[in-house]
Amino acid sequence: MADWNAEQYLKFEDERTRPARDLLAQVPTTAPRKVADIGCGPGNSTALLVERWPDAAVIGVDTSADMLRQARERLPTHKFIEANVAHWAPPAGTDVLFANAVFQWVPDHLKHLKRLAAGLESGGVLAVQMPDNLDEPSHILMREVAMQEPWRQQLSKAAELRDTLPKPGVYYDALRPLCSRLEIWHTVYNHVLDGPEAIVEWVKGTGLRPFIDPLELPERKTYLAAYTARIAAAYPAQADGKVLLRFPRIFLVAVK
Amino acid sequence: MADWNAEQYLKFEDERTRPARDLLAQVPTTAPRKVADIGCGPGNSTALLVERWPDAAVIGVDTSADMLRQARERLPTHKFIEANVAHWAPPAGTDVLFANAVFQWVPDHLKHLKRLAAGLESGGVLAVQMPDNLDEPSHILMREVAMQEPWRQQLSKAAELRDTLPKPGVYYDALRPLCSRLEIWHTVYNHVLDGPEAIVEWVKGTGLRPFIDPLELPERKTYLAAYTARIAAAYPAQADGKVLLRFPRIFLVAVK
Repeated sequence: MADWNAEQYLKFEDERTRPARDLLAQVPTTAPRKVADIGCGPGNSTALLVERWPDAAVIGVDTSADMLRQARERLPTHKFIEANVAHWAPPAGTDVLFANAVFQWVPDHLKHLKRLAAGLESGGVLAVQMPDNLDEPSHILMREVAMQEPWRQQLSKAAELRDTLPKPGVYYDALRPLCSRLEIWHTVYNHVLDGPEAIVEWVKGTGLRPFIDPLELPERKTYLAAYTARIAAAYPAQADGKVLLRFPRIFLVAVK
Repeated sequence: MADWNAEQYLKFEDERTRPARDLLAQVPTTAPRKVADIGCGPGNSTALLVERWPDAAVIGVDTSADMLRQARERLPTHKFIEANVAHWAPPAGTDVLFANAVFQWVPDHLKHLKRLAAGLESGGVLAVQMPDNLDEPSHILMREVAMQEPWRQQLSKAAELRDTLPKPGVYYDALRPLCSRLEIWHTVYNHVLDGPEAIVEWVKGTGLRPFIDPLELPERKTYLAAYTARIAAAYPAQADGKVLLRFPRIFLVAVK
């Protein structure tokens, strides 16, 4: 994939930050020494961590140069590291590993969650949130259009970039033996957006990227038009003309 | 139904209180004058409200004498009122109406939510949480067993005591015109319980009551045995022998 576009991602910053806030609210840690924001993106989640624990050493980790540039502008006194979590280990003494909306992109993520949980000191916390929306119309429809001509050949691999997430019981069995406490839940948000085009704008910043990045501009335009038409049919307007984007996310909080 | 049993309800107090905490976390009010805990039960949610807003006048409202007795023991300096929310209006100047796990029992609850939201002053908040679990195995199976002999005749009405909740879009259309801000979401908890019997104990405190209250002791025992056997099949043990009780709940936070 091309690099992430921080500006596109931040178009819905308030709505996108609520899951990070909800995740943070369930982390019981009071005075951590070191905190790592894994997949920190443009630093919106990192800012929440700094606000909650002003005395901790908070670092951000991301694979995207564009995201890291924005994060450094936002929090110039904090350290941001370009790294892929699949090949990264936290510095010794890290008490909180916070991973908001990143592990859905990491192949075999359960293996890495186990590795990170196992590496925590007693009382340390691994807090994870992932979109669990591949079975929502928003995502079913991007695959459905991609399977049609003329996009089929170029996009046949796009749907494979993200795996469907395991059920809560699978995370439970994998992580429970490594923890003293484990909470697993889903929250299904209903984001109020202006219309079908706004839903497309929203997913353009994340889930739609593997589908439109490989396309040249003319194919991209026709793909987006076909996708937008289906979105409009799947998300009918409310009485006030708005649409509700149903968005399920899974949350895991593991305390070592 | 017979009166509520506070002791049965409180068997899972920590787990039952998390939704109330999650609801409260999304109420933006900083310094309310008066706060009403509608359906206060044994006062566990009321205690959260008193802790959050120690300077507010917090009252509790419930239909159950047993619950109110426990609530008064827990918070002896606060006012608890025996009333049905369907025939109750908040005192003037009430800034927060908090209703945790009560409106699912109120017939035509959407009408009452609209009435309460309409009556708020500007900035006032109506915060509601309801179990939305009638389509979960735990509840499908209590109806399934009730439809069989010998319980059929006595329990045919039990399943009608609670309506399936409307979809988020219905609440949105009903409440949005009355509010400046409206958040609607579901959280699906996974309660870790010791086994199928613990699931039965859990629902005995709430959803199972209309099914077992009408039965004499011998029928009740056979009903519970048949129900427990089905629960055991529907909720297989995790690797450590525990079961996960999946429990969806809907949350509404309306700001006038």
